[in-house]
Amino acid sequence: MRVTDLNDAKALISGILAERKEPFTNVVFLACGGSHACFGIGEYFLRKEAKKVSVYNITANEFNCVQPAVFGENSLVFCMSLSGGTPETVNAAKLAKERGASVIALVAEEDTKLAQYADAVAYYGIEIGNKANVQNQYVILALAVEFLQQTEGSALYDEMITGFDRIVEVCENAKKKVQKRAKQFGADHKDEPVVYTLGSGANYEVAYMMSICMLMEMEWVHSSSIHAAEFFHGPFEVTDPDVPFMVFMGVGPTRCLDERALAFVRNYGSKITVLDAKELGIDMLDDSVVEFFCPILLWTVALEYSEGLAQAKKHPLLMRRYMGKVSY
Amino acid sequence: MRVTDLNDAKALISGILAERKEPFTNVVFLACGGSHACFGIGEYFLRKEAKKVSVYNITANEFNCVQPAVFGENSLVFCMSLSGGTPETVNAAKLAKERGASVIALVAEEDTKLAQYADAVAYYGIEIGNKANVQNQYVILALAVEFLQQTEGSALYDEMITGFDRIVEVCENAKKKVQKRAKQFGADHKDEPVVYTLGSGANYEVAYMMSICMLMEMEWVHSSSIHAAEFFHGPFEVTDPDVPFMVFMGVGPTRCLDERALAFVRNYGSKITVLDAKELGIDMLDDSVVEFFCPILLWTVALEYSEGLAQAKKHPLLMRRYMGKVSY
Repeated sequence: MRVTDLNDAKALISGILAERKEPFTNVVFLACGGSHACFGIGEYFLRKEAKKVSVYNITANEFNCVQPAVFGENSLVFCMSLSGGTPETVNAAKLAKERGASVIALVAEEDTKLAQYADAVAYYGIEIGNKANVQNQYVILALAVEFLQQTEGSALYDEMITGFDRIVEVCENAKKKVQKRAKQFGADHKDEPVVYTLGSGANYEVAYMMSICMLMEMEWVHSSSIHAAEFFHGPFEVTDPDVPFMVFMGVGPTRCLDERALAFVRNYGSKITVLDAKELGIDMLDDSVVEFFCPILLWTVALEYSEGLAQAKKHPLLMRRYMGKVSY
Repeated sequence: MRVTDLNDAKALISGILAERKEPFTNVVFLACGGSHACFGIGEYFLRKEAKKVSVYNITANEFNCVQPAVFGENSLVFCMSLSGGTPETVNAAKLAKERGASVIALVAEEDTKLAQYADAVAYYGIEIGNKANVQNQYVILALAVEFLQQTEGSALYDEMITGFDRIVEVCENAKKKVQKRAKQFGADHKDEPVVYTLGSGANYEVAYMMSICMLMEMEWVHSSSIHAAEFFHGPFEVTDPDVPFMVFMGVGPTRCLDERALAFVRNYGSKITVLDAKELGIDMLDDSVVEFFCPILLWTVALEYSEGLAQAKKHPLLMRRYMGKVSY
């Protein structure tokens, strides 16, 4: 079924739960690359909020080789592939079905290879545009929230509904706000050989996705995502006025980690770009739930910066030398 | 108590379990940087083998900001800090104790700040030398194996005992075997601005540790660890004859992931260094348990390569510009 809002997610999850006799004891997210990173939003929400399930986010082909001992008939699996055809993710879904798990597939289109191994398909039509409510992170969070609400219940549920209502507007406003900055980022970084990203909490995976998808894959720029809490235990020794950092700042309990890393790179570096969810208007959301929505806003904005870099480098985002061009 | 072998680990774990009425439902590893990475060996073993606990490995300062919902009185926590004084890890241990968890501290020396929040202290005297049986990964794996054996039991237990007996010799032999290679690695890479590391399964965290501790922290070389299963979903687009990769290859179910990544970088790159547990003699261990010991061997060897690089660069491993020198 098409899932673009919380009501769709509610229907999908209740359909899955209606087929169960025993409760799920664990939730496993399985995907590759950018999709694997996007699952971070669901992993963060459920790990923080769900008392009755353990939560794992595993890159699909590692799962194909080795599964957690707790994995099996009591597992709820989310598999995601934009095209629905990523072989590693299709194999993971197949394996999950064979092992008796319930599988929810998230894909951009309705009919895909991934769908054939799924108990339910959430297709979100990402091609329609770039609005937050068709962003896959939005759909993942909606499904995670509904899963929690329909199993354990959640004191945050009403505020989450309001959050989903508001995040689209927040993202649209922020996109406009960063147009000039994104262009400037491109101009400033077009000749940089290395760009690091920093993040924490719900937003670490956004920093990871910016690093592996936008910088490495799309712009062939050397990069690494560094968890802001890990930064001071090794990585910060590469800090230098010549080394660019993109700092992804959320609002919520781990913001202090981002702030500490930012203060350091501002002090000992000089090429610092800050994507700050607070300054970009996420404060329209209630304090109790704002942290969970930050990745949606930060990724929306990260796409603008990526486009700014691509234009300045005259290196289109979709240009590849290996992916889909050679066999591997 | 001093823990340098499986018998010590057995005594420590039975002491912890003797104090329990209710079983543990989750195991949480808490540390920073290299110690956080070393916990990967215990995380991998318990996730793959333990059916009755969920397993999380969290960088300590992220845990200080946000805890899993399942965390609490039924949590067994492992905290590690070589010095025993890492403030973020000490805070995490304190928080864990306040929340009612049982805490095992792993430290190099007996009396440390970390110890004051621990129900049991495993000190492993790493200063004695570089032998595998005083390597912290060895101690972590021994504690994890004993925890599993004394709670659920493990069909692998006898073979694990034999594995612990043999791994020290395997490491000593491999260390000699790579002396020349490590020196050559240094000579070949002394002027490289970027070195990537690749790994999977139990060994991914070794690739991470090589990247953040040895390359970034100690040698100020740009780096990122890439999971071999993620490589083809973005990062591989940076592959080029000029870009060096260190490939950490284990033996076990995820070796196929390492092999696939290696074949690609050999085909499209030219500066490829392979640290292969199989070629380095890990096959002395039984097939059923060999995968769990690979990180101990690979890290032993990685230290030699690090020393080779440090000597060629004339940049001592212990030289720092920020860590312990400026406030942050």
